[in-house]
Amino acid sequence: MMYPKTICNLIECYKKLPGIGEKTAERLALATMDLDDEVIAMFSNSLLDIKTKIKRCNICNNLTEEDTCLICKDKTRNHDVICVVEEPKNIITFEKTGAFNGLYHVLDGLISPLDGINPDDLNIDALIKRIDEENIKEVILALKSSIEGETTSLYISKKLENKGVIITKIAHGIPLGADMDYIDSLTISMALEDRKPLT
Amino acid sequence: MMYPKTICNLIECYKKLPGIGEKTAERLALATMDLDDEVIAMFSNSLLDIKTKIKRCNICNNLTEEDTCLICKDKTRNHDVICVVEEPKNIITFEKTGAFNGLYHVLDGLISPLDGINPDDLNIDALIKRIDEENIKEVILALKSSIEGETTSLYISKKLENKGVIITKIAHGIPLGADMDYIDSLTISMALEDRKPLT
Repeated sequence: MMYPKTICNLIECYKKLPGIGEKTAERLALATMDLDDEVIAMFSNSLLDIKTKIKRCNICNNLTEEDTCLICKDKTRNHDVICVVEEPKNIITFEKTGAFNGLYHVLDGLISPLDGINPDDLNIDALIKRIDEENIKEVILALKSSIEGETTSLYISKKLENKGVIITKIAHGIPLGADMDYIDSLTISMALEDRKPLT
Repeated sequence: MMYPKTICNLIECYKKLPGIGEKTAERLALATMDLDDEVIAMFSNSLLDIKTKIKRCNICNNLTEEDTCLICKDKTRNHDVICVVEEPKNIITFEKTGAFNGLYHVLDGLISPLDGINPDDLNIDALIKRIDEENIKEVILALKSSIEGETTSLYISKKLENKGVIITKIAHGIPLGADMDYIDSLTISMALEDRKPLT
């Protein structure tokens, strides 16, 4: 490499990010030089802050800068329903739809014995504690429809049996507007199985 | 957006980089949180340094942290030949081949009247000064084969007429291993025109 040390360092840092290889890192580092001074300052500060300021919500495990996240604090939301998701970014996806007004619970992963991830590694105990202590009526399991997701859903539903709480799972099926030709057969058989009467 | 302020700021910064949209910026910002503390510190420092430490070489206009770049300082290189390139990153591309041992000159752009870039906006005067003052035998024009590149090559070759220096241009033609079916006709006609005898 013939770039000055600072640029080489920056290229190395960009390369640490997922999906960014040598060429892209080089292009990003060179483009960084053209950014405004204020943007660079904000970029640099945000990087330092992200390790220190960002914490996990002490109720739902969502990302937050305070002890409790904005969603858990929001009195206007429905505090009877908890939607269980894998990662904090899933919350953003659900929030963007505007279709859900309850609370969330972030597991921080899915049960995957092959990868050495057991139920104890996930944030499941805190969920059970919430259901025991708060007046929760429904738990919606909104996990991926993979083997890991299904295993985790099953595990949680077993754990929550006899707690007097309704356990539901989001629907899996054909996405809207999707061309039937390109849908895998497992999804189609799931969609057939979960068919509902129209009249 | 429902992310904490720091993450939102970081997403905004990533979005300022070329080719990075909302989704990718979000993914990068979340991935940044998983980086090691040392990487984050180096990232943050490199960003600040890039505006202050990185300068242009006072001879060839290459990126450097000192007054003169490592290539211009290198006594083992051939100081008789200057390769004229558009951007500093072109130097890296040429250096990677290991096929050139001379000096470089970075123009910082190409003549493009439509974009308001005139010869005066480029680093051409410094090139002429180098040829007047130093003992340069050959100037290799290694610019893009676009209208702007050709215009710039023509302009420089006119300017260097009668300076007792050989002016050459890198060859344009069919790239090695390329399928002839996918080469545009202009490249093929250029390759035909520049054909050379084999015996």
